[in-house]
Amino acid sequence: MKKKEYTSFIKETGPLYPEALIQKVNDRINEYLKAYSDTPQILKKAITYSMNNGGKRLRPILCLTVAKSLGKDCELVMPVACAIEFIHTYSLIHDDLPAIDNDDFRRGLLTCHKKFGEDIAILAGDAIFAEAFNIILYKQESPPDILVKVLSEISLASGAHGMVAGQIVDVFFAGKKISKSLLEYMHTNKTGKLITAAVISSAILSGASDDNIGLFKQYSENIGLAFQITDDLLDLESNIEITGKTPGKDLLQNKNTFPSLFGIEKSKKIAKEKISRAIQIVQSMDVDKEWLIKIAQFILQRKN
Amino acid sequence: MKKKEYTSFIKETGPLYPEALIQKVNDRINEYLKAYSDTPQILKKAITYSMNNGGKRLRPILCLTVAKSLGKDCELVMPVACAIEFIHTYSLIHDDLPAIDNDDFRRGLLTCHKKFGEDIAILAGDAIFAEAFNIILYKQESPPDILVKVLSEISLASGAHGMVAGQIVDVFFAGKKISKSLLEYMHTNKTGKLITAAVISSAILSGASDDNIGLFKQYSENIGLAFQITDDLLDLESNIEITGKTPGKDLLQNKNTFPSLFGIEKSKKIAKEKISRAIQIVQSMDVDKEWLIKIAQFILQRKN
Repeated sequence: MKKKEYTSFIKETGPLYPEALIQKVNDRINEYLKAYSDTPQILKKAITYSMNNGGKRLRPILCLTVAKSLGKDCELVMPVACAIEFIHTYSLIHDDLPAIDNDDFRRGLLTCHKKFGEDIAILAGDAIFAEAFNIILYKQESPPDILVKVLSEISLASGAHGMVAGQIVDVFFAGKKISKSLLEYMHTNKTGKLITAAVISSAILSGASDDNIGLFKQYSENIGLAFQITDDLLDLESNIEITGKTPGKDLLQNKNTFPSLFGIEKSKKIAKEKISRAIQIVQSMDVDKEWLIKIAQFILQRKN
Repeated sequence: MKKKEYTSFIKETGPLYPEALIQKVNDRINEYLKAYSDTPQILKKAITYSMNNGGKRLRPILCLTVAKSLGKDCELVMPVACAIEFIHTYSLIHDDLPAIDNDDFRRGLLTCHKKFGEDIAILAGDAIFAEAFNIILYKQESPPDILVKVLSEISLASGAHGMVAGQIVDVFFAGKKISKSLLEYMHTNKTGKLITAAVISSAILSGASDDNIGLFKQYSENIGLAFQITDDLLDLESNIEITGKTPGKDLLQNKNTFPSLFGIEKSKKIAKEKISRAIQIVQSMDVDKEWLIKIAQFILQRKN
């Protein structure tokens, strides 16, 4: 979809993304950061810089949207929503490092290591990861058994059984052709599991039924994979003014992506199928569906 | 104390370190790692290599010792004890990276990035940190309210209000002279807080009284600082055969250390005072004191 088509599409459907929630999330993140009185200035600066680089806040917004779909106030899940954005941000800082993706720009701004140096960037990433747990443990006012369930989802999604596992496959197999199932494993872990953790955590905090938690899981797995496919496509087709990232990096680094294994058209088709499936799942649920569906559509239409 | 003096000292007092517990900790760590069926091989290898490089396991052993001093079985706190060693190990992997301390050897073995490459080392560190939380959340069989308390201690000790804060000061002020209070802040955070978290977590899991938790905190803060001072002294005075690390690195990197600010003799005196204070605190407690005292003495006498 070209820019003009997209603009007229938005006119017809109304916005597909709850933009107003971005500011809410940003405000809360900065409220948490302002209270860091015992943290060295340079660390606080690097954390604050990295946490404020204009992201879409997809994971926290999904978290808030799930709570709303279950009739709960955003406030109920806000700490966990922010915590998950902390984990996402830490993973980007480390991915951007010279030894990994070697990216100078992220969302149009210098990456953390280009701005503060590699040493500070590695450590700021580490601190941001720990802060995610601190936010949940010190800010999320839920009963301990619920907190433990939520922490278990998020922690498992973040490490050697989730995000880092996917990232390792991405790095280790760059330049080597991988099977389609390994590609799906990579994307499911690298991107999908944290998105799923955002959705499931919110469902748990909002008291969703086991059936609904299962359906939310399927919804999030489908949109998570579609999100990563569109990311790969944007890397190929877009330019730095729109995505804020150096374009064509995957190709240059011989990364395994959906377009590199399936071709562009097939990749678009798979992404579309995943989003259709996600919407179908939501349609079957006894929740307020509007924004769950819109966000799924947004993932397919997004330009950055 | 020279090697000969040390040998005769040990003959008089008996061993100061519960060596048998090292194997118990190692076995449990490897039991956890063996179960990683869903983790890419290269990541599992890097994690297993880093978790098995012959450390003293001071933090887990303190954790087990505190439980024993309160009449509990080691088993009660074993998962948390191992989890804290995971956090310690992840911090070493990242500290050793070229952008930070640039160390090729750790405990006589190649550092993780020299063995597996920088990209894998950064990500293995990240995964190990997440695994610490997974171990507590999935292996520590304690009531949720206790788990949340323990996680809160450990998480706070690990990030921008603890270990990473100290590490940032270490890196950022290398080559610039810092005040004695900033040096103490650095050491307290970089090394002390995780040691304190090991001790306090164990006390909480073992059902210690609030009074005892407070006294354990003081004990651990004193031994934590003494441990870092002796670390600085060993870096200056020892050689690679004994410590397994490149000697004199702090001096080469213009690091702020106790010996660089206070001189060697004064540093030894401060370490001794801290250990005396730790022992004095334990003496006042209604717990089984033997190993708590011995470990404090060990910290002063250790050669690596």
